[in-house]
Amino acid sequence: MCEATVYFEDDEGLKLYFDNVDKIFPGEDQLILEDIFGQKKIIKARLKELHLVDHKIIIERTK
Amino acid sequence: MCEATVYFEDDEGLKLYFDNVDKIFPGEDQLILEDIFGQKKIIKARLKELHLVDHKIIIERTK
Repeated sequence: MCEATVYFEDDEGLKLYFDNVDKIFPGEDQLILEDIFGQKKIIKARLKELHLVDHKIIIERTK
Repeated sequence: MCEATVYFEDDEGLKLYFDNVDKIFPGEDQLILEDIFGQKKIIKARLKELHLVDHKIIIERTK
């Protein structure tokens, strides 16, 4: 399946934030993420880079 | 592979915009998209919904 791993990037580098992510709904200054099991997380962040073939998504703090 | 199809949503519904998309780099009011062949497109739009398991990404006009 094509779920992705979401990493949060800060000054110290990348940290795993959420695994097996299926759906993402970007809002004004937050992201709603949902994994393949239906578990949801909301974080004040923005999408920075998506690497779909590598199943890797990088988010960062909303400026 | 886990590339996705990107659809542009407007008042008339969804239109296919770019197929086989691998990478996305969201900017201030634009998106840089790159397909698995390295072809790039830049569009004044924002990410609206990502459905990774369904390989479907919906973008919309930047407000």
